[in-house]
Amino acid sequence: MPNITVELLSGRTLDQRREFAAAVTEAAVGILKARREAVRILFTEIEKSDVANGGVLESDK
Amino acid sequence: MPNITVELLSGRTLDQRREFAAAVTEAAVGILKARREAVRILFTEIEKSDVANGGVLESDK
Amino acid sequence: MPNITVELLSGRTLDQRREFAAAVTEAAVGILKARREAVRILFTEIEKSDVANGGVLESDK
Amino acid sequence: MPNITVELLSGRTLDQRREFAAAVTEAAVGILKARREAVRILFTEIEKSDVANGGVLESDK
Amino acid sequence: MPNITVELLSGRTLDQRREFAAAVTEAAVGILKARREAVRILFTEIEKSDVANGGVLESDK
Amino acid sequence: MPNITVELLSGRTLDQRREFAAAVTEAAVGILKARREAVRILFTEIEKSDVANGGVLESDK
Repeated sequence: MPNITVELLSGRTLDQRREFAAAVTEAAVGILKARREAVRILFTEIEKSDVANGGVLESDK
Repeated sequence: MPNITVELLSGRTLDQRREFAAAVTEAAVGILKARREAVRILFTEIEKSDVANGGVLESDK
Repeated sequence: MPNITVELLSGRTLDQRREFAAAVTEAAVGILKARREAVRILFTEIEKSDVANGGVLESDK
Repeated sequence: MPNITVELLSGRTLDQRREFAAAVTEAAVGILKARREAVRILFTEIEKSDVANGGVLESDK
Repeated sequence: MPNITVELLSGRTLDQRREFAAAVTEAAVGILKARREAVRILFTEIEKSDVANGGVLESDK
Repeated sequence: MPNITVELLSGRTLDQRREFAAAVTEAAVGILKARREAVRILFTEIEKSDVANGGVLESDK
C-alpha cells in the first residue's frame, strides 16, 4: 500500500506515465511515509466514448 | 459526484450508451439531487471470457 | 450484468437509494435490454474528507 | 455476492482462468458459505506498461 | 499481481477471511503461477442496504 | 479526469491527505496536462484485517 488507480483519457505518452508514476510515488513516500516498493500505481485508459459527464458522452462534446 | 461505473457485457451500441447515460443522469439529478455537471458515468466493457458466474466462464455457457 | 457501482457523498436517505436503484434498473432493462435480476447496483458512501477535487479536500471547501 | 475482481498481468491462458475461477468459487462456497450461483469473478488483464511498483513501470524493469 | 478485490456481505468471521485468503492465494500460486508474496487480496464488506439486485435493495428482501 | 483512487492503510492524518492530494494534483496538471478542476482523488481507508499479502492478513503479521 498505497494501491493507486489512475483512470485517465487515452493519449498520454509512456514518458508521461513514467514521470507521473515517479512523482506520485515520491509523494507517497515523502508525505504518506509509505515504503517505496509497496507503492503500486495502475493506469486505466479511458476512451471519450466510455465516459459521460453531465449526461453527455465526452465523445459527443 | 455521484461517480458511477457501469460494467457491462460488450455489444451495446453507442446510442444505447447515450440513452442510458442520459437516463441515469436524469435519475441522479431528480432523485439524489445531484448537480447535473457533477454526475460522471464510466462504461467498462466486459467480454464473456472475462467473467465467471457460479464458477463457469460466461463464454463457456 | 450490468454491475453498477455508485460512489456518492453520504447523506442520502434509504428511500432515495430505493428510488434510484429502481430507476437505474428500469433504464438498464429498457435501454440496455439487461435481464432485471442480473442488474446489480452497489452504493459506496463517501465522506467529504475522503475526496479532493482540484487538489482540495471537499471538507475544506 | 461475493463479487470478486482479479487484476492480473496479461498472458494467462483461458484454461488457467477456468481453473482459477472454479477453485475460487469452490473456496467461496466451502469457506464463505456463499451460494454458488451468486459468486461472480471478473478478470481484468493488465499490461506491464499499465502498472508501476516502487515508482517504476513494470515494462521498464 | 494478481490484485484481488473481494466484495462480500458483512457477517463473515476473521477466521473465514484467513481461510479464504489462504485458499485463493494457493490457487493463484498453483494455477496462475503467481509469486506468493505478490498476491494481494482486499476484502470490502457490504451491508444489505448498500446493494440492490433486480432493482430492490437486499435489505428490503 | 484523471480520476484517481488511493487505497491506503488507515492511520494517516487529514493534513497528510491534504498534502498528498495537492502534490498528486500538481503532478497531474504539470505532467499529464490535466485541467486542475478535473482532477479527482478519492481516498479509501483499509484496515489491516481487510487485506492479505502472500496469503496472510496484515493484521496477523
